[in-house]
Amino acid sequence: MATLTHPTSQTHLFTKLSLKPKKFTSPSRIRMALQENAPSLAVVGVTGAVGQEFLSVLSDRDFPYRSIKMLASKRSAGKQLTFQDRNYTIEELTEDSFDGVDIALFSAGGSISKHFGPVAVEKGSVVVDNSSAFRMEEGIPLVIPEVNPEAMEGIKVGTGKGALIANPNCSTIICLMAATPLHKHAKVIRMVVSTYQAASGAGAAAMEELELQTREVMEGKPPTCNIFKQQYAFNLFSHNAPILSNGYNEEEMKLVKETRKIWNDMNVKVTATCIRVPVMRAHAESVNLQFEKPIDEHTAKDILKSAPGVVVIDDRASNHFPTPLEVSNKDDVAVGRIRRDVSQDGYKGLDIFVCGDQIRKGAALNAIQIAEMLL
Amino acid sequence: MATLTHPTSQTHLFTKLSLKPKKFTSPSRIRMALQENAPSLAVVGVTGAVGQEFLSVLSDRDFPYRSIKMLASKRSAGKQLTFQDRNYTIEELTEDSFDGVDIALFSAGGSISKHFGPVAVEKGSVVVDNSSAFRMEEGIPLVIPEVNPEAMEGIKVGTGKGALIANPNCSTIICLMAATPLHKHAKVIRMVVSTYQAASGAGAAAMEELELQTREVMEGKPPTCNIFKQQYAFNLFSHNAPILSNGYNEEEMKLVKETRKIWNDMNVKVTATCIRVPVMRAHAESVNLQFEKPIDEHTAKDILKSAPGVVVIDDRASNHFPTPLEVSNKDDVAVGRIRRDVSQDGYKGLDIFVCGDQIRKGAALNAIQIAEMLL
Repeated sequence: MATLTHPTSQTHLFTKLSLKPKKFTSPSRIRMALQENAPSLAVVGVTGAVGQEFLSVLSDRDFPYRSIKMLASKRSAGKQLTFQDRNYTIEELTEDSFDGVDIALFSAGGSISKHFGPVAVEKGSVVVDNSSAFRMEEGIPLVIPEVNPEAMEGIKVGTGKGALIANPNCSTIICLMAATPLHKHAKVIRMVVSTYQAASGAGAAAMEELELQTREVMEGKPPTCNIFKQQYAFNLFSHNAPILSNGYNEEEMKLVKETRKIWNDMNVKVTATCIRVPVMRAHAESVNLQFEKPIDEHTAKDILKSAPGVVVIDDRASNHFPTPLEVSNKDDVAVGRIRRDVSQDGYKGLDIFVCGDQIRKGAALNAIQIAEMLL
Repeated sequence: MATLTHPTSQTHLFTKLSLKPKKFTSPSRIRMALQENAPSLAVVGVTGAVGQEFLSVLSDRDFPYRSIKMLASKRSAGKQLTFQDRNYTIEELTEDSFDGVDIALFSAGGSISKHFGPVAVEKGSVVVDNSSAFRMEEGIPLVIPEVNPEAMEGIKVGTGKGALIANPNCSTIICLMAATPLHKHAKVIRMVVSTYQAASGAGAAAMEELELQTREVMEGKPPTCNIFKQQYAFNLFSHNAPILSNGYNEEEMKLVKETRKIWNDMNVKVTATCIRVPVMRAHAESVNLQFEKPIDEHTAKDILKSAPGVVVIDDRASNHFPTPLEVSNKDDVAVGRIRRDVSQDGYKGLDIFVCGDQIRKGAALNAIQIAEMLL
């Protein structure tokens, strides 16, 4: 992990159009992955940070497929890409891209999803969309496999009947991975979230800008501000998402609204303050929970220790708790600082601190776990 | 400010034993500062980050004095220091250091304060202590001049009667500078705080380690971990203060307890999660407020705009809100993201985001404002 926590190598992982050697799979694994009766895949936005991670996760998990289309914008079309020892030519995304595609993994921004998602569904593909385009749309499942798999019941591949499944926002996924097991035990009635969000949430270019700015600032030069309008190195700022009429930014309201939809509980009260911090690829979140029923910190720890996709890092003696670096390139969401909230009476409040890889569980991994449930 | 936001120059500000040229005062200001009938001062821990800032603030504010003793550990004794165009020899702190000292500014850690604070008081000095040694002690005023000046009523200098006044913890000062004006209007009943704390809170050596680690990580080298036991560059972690039996760390409980003492309200409920972020010298805090009486966001903004020592930076249209960089080396605490909390019914909840210079208002400036009230 040491090298992966080095911003340069992290950045390269997303700027080079080939996966890092360690990601290559052995011939035997390729035989496992390539199967005639397996679904045909398409990756939309394959050159982006999440698109690259889609490939990494497909490979790591031996996701079976009989063919895979690498789709991107006209700008990238024609470029070569190596995946599982095979060379692919990146194709331009068009309305014809989805003929014979069983599963289409989208991560190319909301406008691309809005336009091409329905096109793919029309062609009979099951779309797993990482954008916010359809998340809150009535009838579109918004799924975290460990949390609400039931929401996508009945959706199958290869039936000729297309469908669209939305991948929640990264902050929502990471928060709810830890909050849901506690919610199922004692019912969360209110949640106050403050985020510490990494550069990766704004894409590979933002990660590169953080690295570039850091070099510039260390050399006493003014920082280059292309992706963000202000200095990011050795600084932090309110999330760059647009501010809505209620004073919240869009990122914050995603946490509020997506939580209600995923928990299927329109009454759960959520507030969030989303902040961008100079970290490369993993988010952290400070979460204050108010419960309907009592829950003590020992019960909470036991529940979280047995929760799927969650690892508890909570060593008070050695002051060891989750950090973004420790979860970078990891599948599990880490939770720690699990303690009774002294500002609430009885045992109806907890404070927790959660870290998760924004690109992996926050995006690509969650989407591919959804695809796995379709098989 | 551009150069001050450069970590190298920031670090040098605290590693060199002379203040930056811009801090030198003109001869006229020196005449103003040096007065025969002005108090004699002592700065305890003058070589530290806060000790250096004491001198910077004394100079910036033309604090009047007839003499000033530069005190530090045996290690620094004998070194030369330039202040307001005069050369001083740093003296070793001993029990005799306080003879004839009217005001002693302490920032040399809790154990030094515990031992030498009472010694100075015995000699008739008024001690303004930046450590946590006496903050929660019955009868010792814990003061933020803009918030609870009444707590130090009756304490005077030059009466031969010594006294001790405690400077609150940096996170508490920065939080309460923004929360108190709202508290006075609508009464805060509960506060949920998540902090984004700078390296400076751990001293000049921590700032240097953050800079060193950043260089090392950018060069692909393993980071040097002397002050902190883990990588700080491009990472964040739970505050390094010891964890108490209730699962909170000491930094968090300072926010809980000091708020009660400063507001003289044993019923106010506070919870905090304190996190160290890779920023040099200014803290940020996400604060969720529950009020007894209704307060809307417009009223809150107006109240904060007219609050002493507070500046409102809340431009939703251009997404401009407080950042640590913007408040670095500034006196005022900046507050923004002022909005009605959608997770609370009616108008009894607000979310705000606060930034303040940890070394200045979080420590040195607040202490010297206390000293100014003694004159």
